[in-house]
Amino acid sequence: MNVSDLQYFLGMAGTVAFAATAVAAVAPKGIDFFGAIVMGIITAIGGGTIRDVILDVPVFWSLDLNYIWVAIVASLVTFIANRMMTRREIYRSMLYLDALGVSLFAIQATHKVMQYDFGLPLGPVLLGIITAIGGGLIRDVLSNSPTLLMRNELYAIPVTVGCITYYTLMNFSSESAIENGFFSIMLIFCLRSAAIYWDLRVPNWMLTKPTQP
Amino acid sequence: MNVSDLQYFLGMAGTVAFAATAVAAVAPKGIDFFGAIVMGIITAIGGGTIRDVILDVPVFWSLDLNYIWVAIVASLVTFIANRMMTRREIYRSMLYLDALGVSLFAIQATHKVMQYDFGLPLGPVLLGIITAIGGGLIRDVLSNSPTLLMRNELYAIPVTVGCITYYTLMNFSSESAIENGFFSIMLIFCLRSAAIYWDLRVPNWMLTKPTQP
Amino acid sequence: MNVSDLQYFLGMAGTVAFAATAVAAVAPKGIDFFGAIVMGIITAIGGGTIRDVILDVPVFWSLDLNYIWVAIVASLVTFIANRMMTRREIYRSMLYLDALGVSLFAIQATHKVMQYDFGLPLGPVLLGIITAIGGGLIRDVLSNSPTLLMRNELYAIPVTVGCITYYTLMNFSSESAIENGFFSIMLIFCLRSAAIYWDLRVPNWMLTKPTQP
Repeated sequence: MNVSDLQYFLGMAGTVAFAATAVAAVAPKGIDFFGAIVMGIITAIGGGTIRDVILDVPVFWSLDLNYIWVAIVASLVTFIANRMMTRREIYRSMLYLDALGVSLFAIQATHKVMQYDFGLPLGPVLLGIITAIGGGLIRDVLSNSPTLLMRNELYAIPVTVGCITYYTLMNFSSESAIENGFFSIMLIFCLRSAAIYWDLRVPNWMLTKPTQP
Repeated sequence: MNVSDLQYFLGMAGTVAFAATAVAAVAPKGIDFFGAIVMGIITAIGGGTIRDVILDVPVFWSLDLNYIWVAIVASLVTFIANRMMTRREIYRSMLYLDALGVSLFAIQATHKVMQYDFGLPLGPVLLGIITAIGGGLIRDVLSNSPTLLMRNELYAIPVTVGCITYYTLMNFSSESAIENGFFSIMLIFCLRSAAIYWDLRVPNWMLTKPTQP
Repeated sequence: MNVSDLQYFLGMAGTVAFAATAVAAVAPKGIDFFGAIVMGIITAIGGGTIRDVILDVPVFWSLDLNYIWVAIVASLVTFIANRMMTRREIYRSMLYLDALGVSLFAIQATHKVMQYDFGLPLGPVLLGIITAIGGGLIRDVLSNSPTLLMRNELYAIPVTVGCITYYTLMNFSSESAIENGFFSIMLIFCLRSAAIYWDLRVPNWMLTKPTQP
């Protein structure tokens, strides 16, 4: 297994994670199997689709439908295993897989956008964030849930730190993309995992004061 | 009247249906005439616009503005006739027109995407579904209503069955596009009409168990 | 300072207005600094991004990142000044700045779309409206607030009047783009300012009758 195989494998693992956590997230609202699959697909490919449309390049899944097949299978399996998945401890372990997916997609996107010299230096970071959280935002909107931007979770901040880190490292040593990528992915994954494990949230003094009950 | 005229006429009928049912759907929330027109236009052209942006082809309504003019007129008429339209029996007859619109748009989109050889075999089916339900999803989100993905209606499933049927038929006999299209459109329309008439919903054992009240 | 400088300066002022009012609008819900910045950026560039994707031209901010830098700084300043900003009188003065932003973005968009001969005559007006209100719609959806289409504010109507006026004027005297633009921008700004000052809303007889409490 070489580096490119590994990257592909990790991309698929991220897709599984996104689709499965999406179905697990909407399941408590009572969704049918078809809605579950649609939610799984949209969450898995939504962010990357927005990125490719803004970049004006062919959307990634039209060139490799495995992303969609994998999302369909992962959604269906999660739907069927739903009573099991909603048990708290299993849902939490899904969150770590989701964290890995977010890390991978964010850095892959940053890398892709840099290759197109698109809006340097902000473009790669911005589209890295959109790729990582875009699918989840669409899922929350379509399932009428509060979006993660309103939930004060440490979710988008680790992604941003990782994308900036990768962009900075690549400007110093563009020849060692693999090491830079590995480090940045690990950075996002560790920060996000710490947030899940200790249930860390954005501290109160970094919030605006809510005036609504 | 030849086949191409018929197709065009049916496309316009679908546009009328989508715009009119959109206005009828948001009217109970108390919307002004301008918001009604915007909702009507977005519902009628939203799905096809997403399709064309993902396909990276010119959006269909920029090449033929009649789609928008028709949507404006249909929205305005429905807005003015609003007190009449909300009467239950008339709203239900609108639902059948909407079912026809969904059927037409889904198969037209599947056909269009196949012509571009885009992401076969999943691409045409996926974009067929998005074209048929995308406008309605945007309408629900903008009017802060539960989206159809959460309502367990038999809406997206007939569309999916029809798109898969058309794609399969075209692979066996691509020369009889008209017969295949007619059959697939009728299939969606009949399934959806049955769901409206008998108020069929996705059966409970195909739903996840809601844990929220 | 020549006309092009002025236009650029006004575009940046509009960006500041959009980002700042976005943060002020979501602040009462208790948002963290990162969510505030994301909301500010999306509101400032969302409408124009949709326009450019539909036009199939490079998104404007990828060619000039100052739009994003300015949105980030304006969001952060508003976030920090938040306790001050929510005071009613200051929020109202922000609304006038937002009105200026809407006016500028609508006419700039109408002008840009006309230059591409895109879907005349409806295309420039439609995309002018989308550019002006699109970012705000996305903001409302992501922050789970009622969208402006449901609020019966005199917001989209002045924009529409201005876009139609500009398009009409340009067809009579295309050589005097600056005068036409200035007049149309002032028209939107005055109508919208009057709506803010006297708290004008769409009159009841132009609304559908709400049937839900």
